[in-house]
Amino acid sequence: MDFLQVRRPDDFHLHVRQGELLRAVVPHTANDFARALIMPNTTPPIADADAVRRYRDEINRASGKFEPLMTIKVTPETSPGTVRAARVAGAIAGKLYPEGVTTNSADGVRDFRQLSPTFAAMADEGMVLCVHGEDPDAFCLDREAVFLDRTLNQIVTDAPDLRVVLEHISTAAAVDWIRNKQTGVGATITVHHLLLTLDDVVGDLLKPHHFCKPLAKRPEDRLALIDAATSGDERFFLGTDSAPHPRNAKEHASGCAGVFTAPIALGTLAQVFAEVGMTDRLEAFTSVNGARFYGLPLNDGSVTLVNEEWRVPAEYDDIVPLLAQRTVGWKVLGDTAINS
Amino acid sequence: MDFLQVRRPDDFHLHVRQGELLRAVVPHTANDFARALIMPNTTPPIADADAVRRYRDEINRASGKFEPLMTIKVTPETSPGTVRAARVAGAIAGKLYPEGVTTNSADGVRDFRQLSPTFAAMADEGMVLCVHGEDPDAFCLDREAVFLDRTLNQIVTDAPDLRVVLEHISTAAAVDWIRNKQTGVGATITVHHLLLTLDDVVGDLLKPHHFCKPLAKRPEDRLALIDAATSGDERFFLGTDSAPHPRNAKEHASGCAGVFTAPIALGTLAQVFAEVGMTDRLEAFTSVNGARFYGLPLNDGSVTLVNEEWRVPAEYDDIVPLLAQRTVGWKVLGDTAINS
Repeated sequence: MDFLQVRRPDDFHLHVRQGELLRAVVPHTANDFARALIMPNTTPPIADADAVRRYRDEINRASGKFEPLMTIKVTPETSPGTVRAARVAGAIAGKLYPEGVTTNSADGVRDFRQLSPTFAAMADEGMVLCVHGEDPDAFCLDREAVFLDRTLNQIVTDAPDLRVVLEHISTAAAVDWIRNKQTGVGATITVHHLLLTLDDVVGDLLKPHHFCKPLAKRPEDRLALIDAATSGDERFFLGTDSAPHPRNAKEHASGCAGVFTAPIALGTLAQVFAEVGMTDRLEAFTSVNGARFYGLPLNDGSVTLVNEEWRVPAEYDDIVPLLAQRTVGWKVLGDTAINS
Repeated sequence: MDFLQVRRPDDFHLHVRQGELLRAVVPHTANDFARALIMPNTTPPIADADAVRRYRDEINRASGKFEPLMTIKVTPETSPGTVRAARVAGAIAGKLYPEGVTTNSADGVRDFRQLSPTFAAMADEGMVLCVHGEDPDAFCLDREAVFLDRTLNQIVTDAPDLRVVLEHISTAAAVDWIRNKQTGVGATITVHHLLLTLDDVVGDLLKPHHFCKPLAKRPEDRLALIDAATSGDERFFLGTDSAPHPRNAKEHASGCAGVFTAPIALGTLAQVFAEVGMTDRLEAFTSVNGARFYGLPLNDGSVTLVNEEWRVPAEYDDIVPLLAQRTVGWKVLGDTAINS
């Protein structure tokens, strides 16, 4: 039996929702992760300093075991003053959604250049800009590549001092885009984009629990993402985008986008890295690269993974996880406090 | 107010299922169509002469108003003798499914060359081979184009006297393939492939009632299909592939493929043809080209369409139709017996 020990990891892209759903999902992340970057697309959104403080309190009441890293949603109304106050309240990043691309993004941005003063304030405050990189006007499979060409190139050119994370990349084009930039840009990669292609969504029967934004793409895109995640390249790091929806919001005539991976993320990642013989690079992806990009200290302690098969439950509190009722080859043994 | 009169149409690709579901859906087709080619992928399949007779009787009991044109399912077990007996029982075509590509195709074909004697018997009997043209081993969006290259070219080369219909084409590649063949091949086009792209399935919220095989593809594919359907080219004709599933089989963790269009087919087609200014070619597509390809007499009588908006119901007997709760610009006024 093989064991793997990695420094306690960070999840640099996490949805925990609100209320009852928040209380159901937060413990899954708290069990395995030291910190998680909390997405602000709640209803109403986390858009200013007061909301940041209230939301952090709500998360902490659900579990004191991990540290929520707070963000604000960058909308057309986000002023430099809002940014500075949010930074004082502890927000370390702002999340930018193009209008209409995913869950609760109707208040997203269409004219990115009007946000130049906001981006300048973020750079000045050392805040990171997290971008959902899809162009809502493009054909669904082209949205990421079109956004890179039409919008993100412009943003990074106009704001050279802003640190930018392209979130949940889904294409070989995005991997190449990141690799071709010299500094200041990184990318998160989810667990589900390492596992799924569009064949797993619409290739056989329709699988709403595999439906997410950005869509899982072609097999060659998945391979490019695995290559990036396991490369050790410090610009690529874990952001699960674990996004819980109640079962009936997924199995619906208008089904929500999002894959719930918090309970299975680490075991599944160990399996993916083991399958390509790269377990020695797992820690960089889960526990080092992201913290360094954000300028955060590395976590103390470690988690131990063991290659022991376990069967993923059909659901957790009415939320169907990725790989429900399937077998995962690795599991988290539990946290072990070590000096680091 | 505009009126359109077309010869009573034929639907050269229709699923009516069995039992209660059959009795619910058959009247919708019988209202608007003179004949329909009935797909044989029931459980168990319609695979021999006896099954053809029983299934036709069941359909006729549900409505005597239209003529079901019968088919058999061509499986690895379909012998030349089976073909000849089915022809005597009235089957005019055999439907070929590659293994595993769609609803009830687990008994489909993998080795097409072993069917050469069967194909020869079909050609000899004047039966048409109807093909679900997708390669199950290819990525979902490539399956049609790969099937044309790897399999269908071989079938039409090996059996030059066999008349072949490529069913429910979904790509510009298939349109080009048909146009480049000289004789003996045709293609059906569905209503939903003239309306939908993949954006309508997975581009916004997930839409299980738009999920079908072959998948709706890119915008440029849809435009190529509209161009083919409205071209007057006699090799392209209507096959709705109207495929009813109960709502809970679509809004499900493993949702079935198929779009139910029987009640809205003609009105929607009139709208599509009107939008491109080609209503004078509607009759060729719905009522002439297919009958000529199959060597059938043209139907007597006509249906009249009027450009009057109507709202499609949310469901018909628990089956959600295409364009549910949306407005269609044309409706069928009813059949009018005329001499032809």
